[in-house]
Amino acid sequence: MNINQKAVNALRILSADQIQKANSGHPGLPLGAAPAAYELWANHMNHNPKNPNWENRDRFILSAGHGSALLYSLLHMFGYEGMTIDELKSFRQFGSLTPGHPEYKHTIGVESTTGPLGAGVSTAVGIAMAEAHLASEFNKEGYPVVDHYTYALTGDGCLMEGISYEALSLAGTLKLDKLVVLYDSNNITIEGDTEAAFTEDVAKRFDAFGFQVQTVEDGNDLEAISKAIEAAKADHERPSIIICKTQIGYGCPAKVGKASAHGEPLGEENIKELRKSLGWESETAFEVEEDIYDHYNSIAEENAKKEEEWNKMFAEYANKFPEEKKKWDLFFGEFDESKIMDSKEYWAHEDKAMATRAVSGDLINKLKDICPNMVGGSADLAPSNKTEMKGEGFFSVDDRSGRNIHFGVREMAMTAITNGIYLHGGLKPFCATFFVFSDFMKPMIRLAALMGLPVAYVLTHDSIGVGEDGPTHEPVEQLSMLRSIPNLNVFRPADYTETAVAWASAMKSEATPTAIVLTRQNLPQLEGSSQDAFKGGYILEEASNKNNIDLILMASGSEVELAVNAKAELEKAGKSVRVVSVPCMSIFDAQDAAYKETVLPSSVRARVAIEAGATMPWFKYIGLDGEVVGMTSFGASAPAGELFKHFGFTVENVLETAKRVLK
Amino acid sequence: MNINQKAVNALRILSADQIQKANSGHPGLPLGAAPAAYELWANHMNHNPKNPNWENRDRFILSAGHGSALLYSLLHMFGYEGMTIDELKSFRQFGSLTPGHPEYKHTIGVESTTGPLGAGVSTAVGIAMAEAHLASEFNKEGYPVVDHYTYALTGDGCLMEGISYEALSLAGTLKLDKLVVLYDSNNITIEGDTEAAFTEDVAKRFDAFGFQVQTVEDGNDLEAISKAIEAAKADHERPSIIICKTQIGYGCPAKVGKASAHGEPLGEENIKELRKSLGWESETAFEVEEDIYDHYNSIAEENAKKEEEWNKMFAEYANKFPEEKKKWDLFFGEFDESKIMDSKEYWAHEDKAMATRAVSGDLINKLKDICPNMVGGSADLAPSNKTEMKGEGFFSVDDRSGRNIHFGVREMAMTAITNGIYLHGGLKPFCATFFVFSDFMKPMIRLAALMGLPVAYVLTHDSIGVGEDGPTHEPVEQLSMLRSIPNLNVFRPADYTETAVAWASAMKSEATPTAIVLTRQNLPQLEGSSQDAFKGGYILEEASNKNNIDLILMASGSEVELAVNAKAELEKAGKSVRVVSVPCMSIFDAQDAAYKETVLPSSVRARVAIEAGATMPWFKYIGLDGEVVGMTSFGASAPAGELFKHFGFTVENVLETAKRVLK
Repeated sequence: MNINQKAVNALRILSADQIQKANSGHPGLPLGAAPAAYELWANHMNHNPKNPNWENRDRFILSAGHGSALLYSLLHMFGYEGMTIDELKSFRQFGSLTPGHPEYKHTIGVESTTGPLGAGVSTAVGIAMAEAHLASEFNKEGYPVVDHYTYALTGDGCLMEGISYEALSLAGTLKLDKLVVLYDSNNITIEGDTEAAFTEDVAKRFDAFGFQVQTVEDGNDLEAISKAIEAAKADHERPSIIICKTQIGYGCPAKVGKASAHGEPLGEENIKELRKSLGWESETAFEVEEDIYDHYNSIAEENAKKEEEWNKMFAEYANKFPEEKKKWDLFFGEFDESKIMDSKEYWAHEDKAMATRAVSGDLINKLKDICPNMVGGSADLAPSNKTEMKGEGFFSVDDRSGRNIHFGVREMAMTAITNGIYLHGGLKPFCATFFVFSDFMKPMIRLAALMGLPVAYVLTHDSIGVGEDGPTHEPVEQLSMLRSIPNLNVFRPADYTETAVAWASAMKSEATPTAIVLTRQNLPQLEGSSQDAFKGGYILEEASNKNNIDLILMASGSEVELAVNAKAELEKAGKSVRVVSVPCMSIFDAQDAAYKETVLPSSVRARVAIEAGATMPWFKYIGLDGEVVGMTSFGASAPAGELFKHFGFTVENVLETAKRVLK
Repeated sequence: MNINQKAVNALRILSADQIQKANSGHPGLPLGAAPAAYELWANHMNHNPKNPNWENRDRFILSAGHGSALLYSLLHMFGYEGMTIDELKSFRQFGSLTPGHPEYKHTIGVESTTGPLGAGVSTAVGIAMAEAHLASEFNKEGYPVVDHYTYALTGDGCLMEGISYEALSLAGTLKLDKLVVLYDSNNITIEGDTEAAFTEDVAKRFDAFGFQVQTVEDGNDLEAISKAIEAAKADHERPSIIICKTQIGYGCPAKVGKASAHGEPLGEENIKELRKSLGWESETAFEVEEDIYDHYNSIAEENAKKEEEWNKMFAEYANKFPEEKKKWDLFFGEFDESKIMDSKEYWAHEDKAMATRAVSGDLINKLKDICPNMVGGSADLAPSNKTEMKGEGFFSVDDRSGRNIHFGVREMAMTAITNGIYLHGGLKPFCATFFVFSDFMKPMIRLAALMGLPVAYVLTHDSIGVGEDGPTHEPVEQLSMLRSIPNLNVFRPADYTETAVAWASAMKSEATPTAIVLTRQNLPQLEGSSQDAFKGGYILEEASNKNNIDLILMASGSEVELAVNAKAELEKAGKSVRVVSVPCMSIFDAQDAAYKETVLPSSVRARVAIEAGATMPWFKYIGLDGEVVGMTSFGASAPAGELFKHFGFTVENVLETAKRVLK
C-alpha cells in the first residue's frame, strides 16, 4: 500500500477510534471523505501547523461539522499545537480540545465553529469575500500579500439548507473565484436515501449560480481529486464546486452506504472489520505507524516553507510600501478605542429630533474614516437601514475595494458571511436588516455569540413604530429573543448619545457581538442621556427627592421619552420619580452589585418598565410588585402614532399603571 | 381598448390610488404584475367569490406580500365579501380589511399571511402537498373531489430567500405537479438592479429542481401568460414556474424600471401621468367604470358555476361513498376532543423512566389512529425525534397517501410547509427537529402564531442533556425565544402524563400553535404529575405544611425531578417546601388570578426556579427575592451527566440557592 493510501487510512482509523472511545459521534463522513480531505490538506492547502495564524494561509471550513473527528485527525497528523493523541482519546469529553463539533478559539486550527448545517459553507463565502477585498486593499504588483484560497467541505445536509443556497448564489454573483466547495456526495441522510427528499440536480444548480462544476466519480481516487482541485484553483472567473461521489462509512462492511453509518459509533466488531478491509495493520486503537507520521511531518515542513517565502515577500513589501504596512498593522492589529472616545466629531450632534436609524447612518459615516477596515451592508434595505458608507463604493466583481456590500434578500447568509469576514481577520464587519427579520439571522447570530466575534448588527424599524407595514413587519418578541442569547450585547438606544455609545461599544468589543436596535420614527435628543449608557443602565433623570423615591420608571429606546414625560406628570402630582434608561441589559447586569443598587435601590419596589416589545425581559428589574407596559400581542397595520396609542404607549396609560403600582 | 386591458388597468389604478391615499405602500409590483394576476384570476383560477371557503377552490398565495394592494384590488373587483371600495380607501389604516401585508383570517380571500419574503411560496408548497395527500385519501374514479391547483406569485426577493430554495427543491423532489409559481421578474430590488446581488440563472435553477420552466418575455402579453398557465396545468409530472418578464412600476413614466417604484407612493403628479399613459379615462381616485365591474362580475358568475358543478359531484360522491363522506366530515369538521380525553389507552403508561421524546413517539402512534388526518414529519431527524407514525408510509411521488413526511434538512421550509398543510384545510400537521434548530424555524413559527394555526412542533434534545454534541446543538435561549412569541403555547413536559397533556392540548387547540419541547435523556414518571398540567402550572408536590410555606420550588421538564429531590432534602431539614411544575407558562398566565394565587401565593416570596435554559422567562414568577438556577452561558461538549453537574443542576446547588433565598 502506498504511503498516501496509508495516510488516508490513518485519518479513517483515528476518526473511528475517537468515536468508538467516546461512544458518541459521526463516523460516516470521516470514512467517506478522508481521501478528499487528505488530498486537499497534503497537496494543495497552504498551511503551516506551526503558525496557524499566518494571515495568508488557505482557509478550510468543515461545514459538515459533525465530521469533527476527521478534522481532529488531520490536525493531529499534521502536528498542530496541542492536538495530541490524548486529545483524540478525549474526544467529546469535558474540557478536551476535541468537542463534538469543531469550536473556533477553543481548538487551534479550527477556522470556524460549525455544526448547524449550511453555516460553515456560508461562512466560507464571507472569508472569500474578505480575501478578495483585502487583496484589493493591499496587494501590489509582484507582492500578492493577500492571496489565498478558501475551502469548505460540505455534505448533503449543508446543501439542503436554505442558507447555503443564499450564500452560494451570492458567491456566484460576486464571482468569488478563490472559493472552492468540496461536496461529499454520498446520497445518504439520517432518514435514508437522498432520493426521498433531495433529488435536485446539484451540478445544474451550481451551474445556475455561476460556479465551475466538476464531478469526481470515485471519491477514493486521489489523483482525480487532485486534478479537480487544480482545475478549481485555475479558474479565475468562477467559484468552484467539486462533487466527490463517496460512500458513507467507507471501509466498514456492515455500515457502508447505510444511514446508520452517519451518527453512531461503528462498534468494536465493525472497527475490527474496518481495519481488516482497509489493510490497517495495527489492532491497537489510536496507534499509527511512524512512517505515516513521518510522511505527514515532511509535508508539514514543506508547507512551512510557503510561509517562510511569504514572510520574506512581506518583509520586502513592508519596506517598499511603508504606508501600506501601517495600514496593515491598523487592519490586523488591535483597535485603538481612543480614536472614537476622543473624537469630538463622533459625539457631536444637533439638538433636533432624529430617528435613531438616521443617527446610526451618520455614525457609520463617521466611523468609516475612524475605522478604515469597517465593511458592511444590508439585506437589500440599505436605504431604509441607513447603512451606506457614502463614497466608499460597493463590493462587486468589478470593484473589490468597495466597503459597502449588497447582500441581497438573504438575512441568514448575510449574518454567516459577516461572521466569515470577521473570521478571516483584518476587517470589522457589520450587517443590517429590519429588526423583525433578525428572526432570519438568529441561527447565525447565535454562532457569532458562541464564537465570540465582535461583529455588529444594525436592526432598524424596531417596534410597532413601523406602522403601516403591519404585524409581519413589527417586532414584538425579538428583544427577548436576542437578549436571551449568551454573549450578545443588545443595545436599544434612546437618542444620538446612546446610539453613539452603542456603536462605540460595538467597535470596542473584543469578543462579543453587538445588536443595535433602532427606530424608524424620530426621537428627541434627551437632556439626561450621557456616556453613562456605557454601563448599560443609568439614571437618566433623578427623582425630585432622591432620598425618598416613590417610583422608578425604566425604559429603553423610543419609550425613554415616554418615561420622561410621564415622570414630569407624576412629579407635578407630587411624586418623586426616577427615570432609568436601560439601553443594554447584558452590560447593566454585568456591573457590580453596588452600582446596580445605586440605580435600582432594592428598597424601591414600585417600578414600571416601558418598552414596545414583549414584557419578558423586564421582570428581573420590576419584580412581583411592578408592572411592564409592553406588548402582549402582535402589532397591527396603521400609522405609527395610532398604534402607540392603541397599544397603551401613552402618558395616560403609564400614569394609570403607576397608580396601580403605587397602591 | 379591449375590456381585458381595461380590467388589468383597473387593478393598477386601484392599487396606485390605495397607496397614494394611505401615503404608504408598494406600487411597483401591482403595476408590473397586474396582467399576470388578472389573467390567472379571470381565466384560470377556479374560485367563487361568494364562497371563498369552497374546499376545492384553486389557491392563490401572494408571496410578494408587499404587493397587497394588488390582491385587495382583485378581491374588490371580483366582489369578495366585505372588500368594498371604502376598504380600499382605508388601505393600511387601523381596523381596515386592507392591512399593509395580507392577513389570513382578517381578510376574506387571503389564503395566507405573507410579507416576510419567501414564506408565501413555501407555504404554497405545503398547500400543494395537502392537496395531493387529500386527493389520494378521497378521490374515486370519476369523483375527483380534491383536484385543484395552487398558485404563488413571487418576486425576486422571494426567490433570493433561502426558504424558497428549500421548499421548491422539495416540491421538485415530490413532483408536485399542481403547484404553479408565477415569478414577477423585474430585475429590480430595493438597493437597485438585481445584477448587484442576484445574477443566478433562475430558469436553470428551477430546471435543476425538476420544474417545468417557461418564460413569458412580455409580462403585458395576456395571451402568452394564458398559454403558459395552460402549459403549466397540463404538465402532470412536474411543478411549474412561469418567469414573467415585467417592468416594476409599469405605466408610470417617472418610476418605471426604477427601485423607487418599489416601496413608496407614486405621488399625485405621477398618478396623473399613470392614468394618461394607461389610457385610463376617469381622473377621480378609486373610480372604475361600470363596464369593467360588469366584466369582472360576469367572470365571477361563470366561476361560481364551477363550484355548483363540484357541489353536484360531491353530493353524488357522498351518496355513493358514505364511508368516505364520514371521513371527509371528520377531516374537515371540528375535532372531537373527547376522543383523546376519554381514551384510556392514550393516558395509560408504564411506570418506567423514559425520555419524553420517546413518550412523544408513543403518543404520536396513539394519536395517528385517534386523528386520522394527522400528518407530519421531521427535518431528517425522525429516528431521533421519534416522530414516525408506524405503518403509515411516507408521502412521496409514488405514494401520496403516506402520512409521514421526509422534509429533508430544511427546518424553515418545513415549518412554512406545515403552515400550508394546515391552511389548505382537512389536515392536522406537525413537524419536528432538534430544539436548538427551532432557531431556523422561528420566522415561520411566528407566522403560524400570527395566523392562529393550531399546528404542532416536536422539538427534542431540549437542553445540555444533549451532551456530547456540544454547544452548537444545546439549546439555551430557545425557551425564552419561543415563550416570548404571542399566541404560541410552549410545553416542556416532565414525564408521560405531562407529555400527554401537551399533545392533547396541541390537538385540541383551535387557533394557537403548540411547541412540545422534549428531552433526549430518560426521566422518571412523577407521582405528583396530573392533568392539572392543562392549567399550565400546578402544585406537583404540596409542602408539608401548606398553611406555612417556607419556599416554592418551580421547574419545568427534566428539572422537575430535581425540584422534587431538592424538596425531599429540604423537608428533611425541616422546611415546608412546595414544588410547582410549570409545563406551559402562557397557559398558566391565562388562568384566573385566584387560581394563580393558590399556586403561587403572593405572600411567599422565597422562590427558586430551576430550568436548564436561559433564566429570563422565570423572573415574573420569582421576583426580586427569588433566584433562578438556569443557564447563563452556552453549554459544552461532554456526557450529559457531567454537564448537568458542571452547570449546577444538582440537588446540592439547589439547596445552596434555597439557603440564599431563605435568608
